[in-house]
Amino acid sequence: MSKPYSQKKIVVIGGGTGVFTVLTGLRKHFSDLTAVVTMSDDGGSTGILREEFGILPPGDVRRSLVALARTDNEVLAQLFNYRFEEGAGLTGHSFGNLMLTALERLTGSFDLAVKEAGRILSIQGRVLPVTLKNAKLYAELENGKVVRGETNIDIPKYDSGSAIKKIWLKPRAVVNPEVSAAILGADAVLIGPGDLYTSLIPNFLVKGMSDVLKKSRAKKIYFVNVMTKYGETHGFKASDFLNVLERYLGRGILDFVVVNVKKPGWSRLKNYVQEKAELVEFDRENFARRPTVITADLLRVKGLVRHDSDKITNLVKMIL
Amino acid sequence: MSKPYSQKKIVVIGGGTGVFTVLTGLRKHFSDLTAVVTMSDDGGSTGILREEFGILPPGDVRRSLVALARTDNEVLAQLFNYRFEEGAGLTGHSFGNLMLTALERLTGSFDLAVKEAGRILSIQGRVLPVTLKNAKLYAELENGKVVRGETNIDIPKYDSGSAIKKIWLKPRAVVNPEVSAAILGADAVLIGPGDLYTSLIPNFLVKGMSDVLKKSRAKKIYFVNVMTKYGETHGFKASDFLNVLERYLGRGILDFVVVNVKKPGWSRLKNYVQEKAELVEFDRENFARRPTVITADLLRVKGLVRHDSDKITNLVKMIL
Repeated sequence: MSKPYSQKKIVVIGGGTGVFTVLTGLRKHFSDLTAVVTMSDDGGSTGILREEFGILPPGDVRRSLVALARTDNEVLAQLFNYRFEEGAGLTGHSFGNLMLTALERLTGSFDLAVKEAGRILSIQGRVLPVTLKNAKLYAELENGKVVRGETNIDIPKYDSGSAIKKIWLKPRAVVNPEVSAAILGADAVLIGPGDLYTSLIPNFLVKGMSDVLKKSRAKKIYFVNVMTKYGETHGFKASDFLNVLERYLGRGILDFVVVNVKKPGWSRLKNYVQEKAELVEFDRENFARRPTVITADLLRVKGLVRHDSDKITNLVKMIL
Repeated sequence: MSKPYSQKKIVVIGGGTGVFTVLTGLRKHFSDLTAVVTMSDDGGSTGILREEFGILPPGDVRRSLVALARTDNEVLAQLFNYRFEEGAGLTGHSFGNLMLTALERLTGSFDLAVKEAGRILSIQGRVLPVTLKNAKLYAELENGKVVRGETNIDIPKYDSGSAIKKIWLKPRAVVNPEVSAAILGADAVLIGPGDLYTSLIPNFLVKGMSDVLKKSRAKKIYFVNVMTKYGETHGFKASDFLNVLERYLGRGILDFVVVNVKKPGWSRLKNYVQEKAELVEFDRENFARRPTVITADLLRVKGLVRHDSDKITNLVKMIL
């Protein structure tokens, strides 16, 4: 029953499915886990609830809670991820999103709702919204057009062919004090993998995040994505990911940047042709002396071309 | 912390809010509780989910689960009873009903869904649907009109002035085997209080229920309502409640019939004038030698003219 858990304190920053991947691996070896989740999601069930209830977005929080749920609560974790497929008013809603919404109304705050949900799921660790302010994500494209809302940035409605020039939050959001405390007390802070502009950077647009990361003595590790994403990071090489991230995070903060160098076979890559996603190329010549570059095989053995959660975990153990 | 719980096995049969009242009192003294819940409800959130998902009605099950939820799960119990007041598709839905619906889809059966919900709420005891068959309640009125659906019987759409002549289920439903086992192993079976035609009798319309109650050596105790209900039991005296119940349950099965004889003040009764509900009169002259009649003050001290859960519990302890 008992495993030799490391007592190191790990903070994971991200959003979307990336956080889920990282946490499911880490939880096997680390007991003190904090997931810091971006609050810029506004698509699907999350978007509807955000619009109708004026709450912070539940979707990414839900994924992190499920990743940290104790395995003896398997049905509860499945329930939390269950998506209604019938019913005039219910179709498309995720049950966990509805639970977080109801808990927000019962407790009076999204923050407390996330804590209660964590208690109900008996999670191992904590899930914290990066900010408690309800702010929207905006992007200005290279062609001058301004796009509002994460969903519109994430999945461009029309093929503008125009890259993202810059992104910002409106209204301005301040870092959740518990997030500051967690980062200041951490042994390691992991950033990514995840959609650069819509899952990772929105965390650093929150006032106070860069400062607290600079102050923290934690090892700060950035995981570069393994695939580019059309509309966000089309044509990006590994150094482009790092450069854009540091433009928002600040330079000299990251200690390590981790780049996958394993190339999957064509049979796996060909599924990405339609969505115009490509394997991220490691352009060693464009990296400076800091942050330290770590290259490794981080890919899952089969299926989607994504990070493998155990390979990430092993790498973190090696660094710490 | 530890209380001197009785080891006696108690089965409570009913529906609506009556079961909730009985269970909240009993749970303080009895650890082995089984709530048998009618499956004929079809109003409100329950009705919509029944219609759209084809599931058994979750409403009464939800109330029983909340009544048995351990008190250290207070937020969870509140959550389970939470009703959405916003959102185009969500308004009016009770969260617990949505949970039971999602669990039904996940586990593949309503029966398993109720068990999982009970585990999540760490209930003290069990909640069992009286039948696993999805059947509708029908009523024929004295004027010959046939009414379909519990809600239409419960809250007559027009003032027909016509009493209920008989009720039945369609299609025919068979008793849940776990209910049979619980009744056969019980020390006491409590019936009511609750709406006679829409919460209590639908349980005995289920094939096998009367037989198993006849076989069981449990003490069978019927709690007559304290107030009449317009459209269901208008003008009923205590003996009318018993006679109608026994018409469906069968004669010679009940051991005790409990009648309240405490009269509340006019200040409390006057609130019932509009809904044409009246205090049930104890007409001793119309009772036979069996079942044994027990008269007592069973009223709450203030507020609604309803049974007091602790007074019911004390009476049960006295009988056992």
